[in-house]
Amino acid sequence: MPRSRTVAQVGEFGFLKRLLPTLGGGRGVIVGAGDDCAVIAPRSSRLVVTVDALVEDVHFRPHWLRPAQIGRKAYLVNLSDVAAMGARPRFVLVSVGVPPSYPARDLLALHRGIREAASETGAAVVGGNVSRAGKLFVSITLIGESSAPSARRKGARPGDAVCVTGSLGDAALGVRQLLGNRNARSRAVARFREPPNRLQAGSLLVGHGVVSAMIDVSDGLLQDLGHLCRSSGVGAHLELERVPCSASVRAGGPALVLGGGEDYELLFTVSRERLGRLQRVMPRLGCPVTRIGEIVPKSRGVRVFDAAGNVVPVRHAGHDHFAGRGRP
Amino acid sequence: MPRSRTVAQVGEFGFLKRLLPTLGGGRGVIVGAGDDCAVIAPRSSRLVVTVDALVEDVHFRPHWLRPAQIGRKAYLVNLSDVAAMGARPRFVLVSVGVPPSYPARDLLALHRGIREAASETGAAVVGGNVSRAGKLFVSITLIGESSAPSARRKGARPGDAVCVTGSLGDAALGVRQLLGNRNARSRAVARFREPPNRLQAGSLLVGHGVVSAMIDVSDGLLQDLGHLCRSSGVGAHLELERVPCSASVRAGGPALVLGGGEDYELLFTVSRERLGRLQRVMPRLGCPVTRIGEIVPKSRGVRVFDAAGNVVPVRHAGHDHFAGRGRP
Repeated sequence: MPRSRTVAQVGEFGFLKRLLPTLGGGRGVIVGAGDDCAVIAPRSSRLVVTVDALVEDVHFRPHWLRPAQIGRKAYLVNLSDVAAMGARPRFVLVSVGVPPSYPARDLLALHRGIREAASETGAAVVGGNVSRAGKLFVSITLIGESSAPSARRKGARPGDAVCVTGSLGDAALGVRQLLGNRNARSRAVARFREPPNRLQAGSLLVGHGVVSAMIDVSDGLLQDLGHLCRSSGVGAHLELERVPCSASVRAGGPALVLGGGEDYELLFTVSRERLGRLQRVMPRLGCPVTRIGEIVPKSRGVRVFDAAGNVVPVRHAGHDHFAGRGRP
Repeated sequence: MPRSRTVAQVGEFGFLKRLLPTLGGGRGVIVGAGDDCAVIAPRSSRLVVTVDALVEDVHFRPHWLRPAQIGRKAYLVNLSDVAAMGARPRFVLVSVGVPPSYPARDLLALHRGIREAASETGAAVVGGNVSRAGKLFVSITLIGESSAPSARRKGARPGDAVCVTGSLGDAALGVRQLLGNRNARSRAVARFREPPNRLQAGSLLVGHGVVSAMIDVSDGLLQDLGHLCRSSGVGAHLELERVPCSASVRAGGPALVLGGGEDYELLFTVSRERLGRLQRVMPRLGCPVTRIGEIVPKSRGVRVFDAAGNVVPVRHAGHDHFAGRGRP
């Protein structure tokens, strides 16, 4: 395919014809892409399913991510949801909306980014759809296999420790840097471009019965902690100083740490009796785990305290795609 | 929720909070919407999966469809793919992109349209995502249960009869009428708004071993016949006069009948020995079936003949979202 051809010039069918031979392999795939439906034969009788989308000029600006990075990220944000259930990713469906002027090679690269990230994590792209659209969107459905029981947002109890994997705030700092056109090769920008893979951590934490509740941190620590607390019918008190983040994120202020969004870390709770299990499994998680607070009765609310013991104001922490405060 | 509030005013979380209590019911749904993933327990070990999207100003103009009709249609176009495999729909995931100014009640109505259509056909909405977008898009993933073997696009052999359910060209005629702002209550426009449900036909045709190959007609009869023939490694000869359509579609010329698109009928092939089975099952299909031609060796091509035996020129039949010739 010549480098200069657009999606409109190649045509939907031409595009799919290029793509199809590369799709549909993999264990448990009876019929891959190219029929009216894919046919799959999962080994587990219990499946987890999730869908998430990246939209141009909402989640990213075109020059912030190369096409393959867009595909890779669109997959990894879904992987994060599967990790938070303690499940294994298996089957991927891709729904892409693309402007007619979009270069065909970029659409192929975007799909390659999805396929490679899926393949690295044990999943296969089994189907998809390509539609015309004014702006690029990539909506990915991920089907995973679950060992029963999965981790849930509900299940946290007062007295449980609140823990988080990895570190927070970098992706949001990366967006600030990209918006300011500075330091586009920073660690923070790299983190915005590629969410972490916490599959192993999620799987071990659930498999060893460590967690009482779990959620992935996609909307910002406090907003997702709020989801977990609402689902569990509890409150939580956090210590700001304990929240793991880089020095540059810390310098950016609490809003970045508590509400930045797109961290894709795992936030989970552990009962006192199970903290020993957490200690034993920790070396195999593939990432640090930090205890950042405690679950309290619902009446005591969801609060963050600074080193002096004062409540940190957290209004407007967390991002909301509709609020106009969010990125980009 | 006051009638006048927009999606941005309600906020993503507020919207989902309104919606969640209505989601997630249904047989085989272990965890419904509202966690990081839904958890499902299909009864069949063999699943069919498909995804398809409707995009504003590509597949419809805003005033052509009420929000509930958009949701309903987005579901039914996926149902058509499941019907073409002879499978049963079970689990639905919805990925919506929506402008911040979109009325919140319209988004709820759109979701209601999906849920109701799913419920009527034995499926449940188990999860979803809402994202900001410049224009409305609705991408639906449908997971179905399959009896083995499914119908495929491949399997047609020379000598097989080519058959189609229902009638063709109405949806495309409806789009012409909508573009001309005329007769918006016609049968053709109704057909554009609501694709037919051919689940029962698909299920019986596969279950009784009638079909050698099957595909749903979404891109136009000739384009989808081309897909079936390519997959099967055969050609096909059709008789234009036999293709079932209304008088007004017939008056619109062969391009409407052969390439209109969005018919969502089933196109299938039947070996000579199985035509008796087709006769026996026909009364229970819930729709007419018409024999429109015959599968021929690949070397004889895919051709359409008029009543005089002349080849009907079919260049540019079929619509392609990228080609700019398509609707709207």
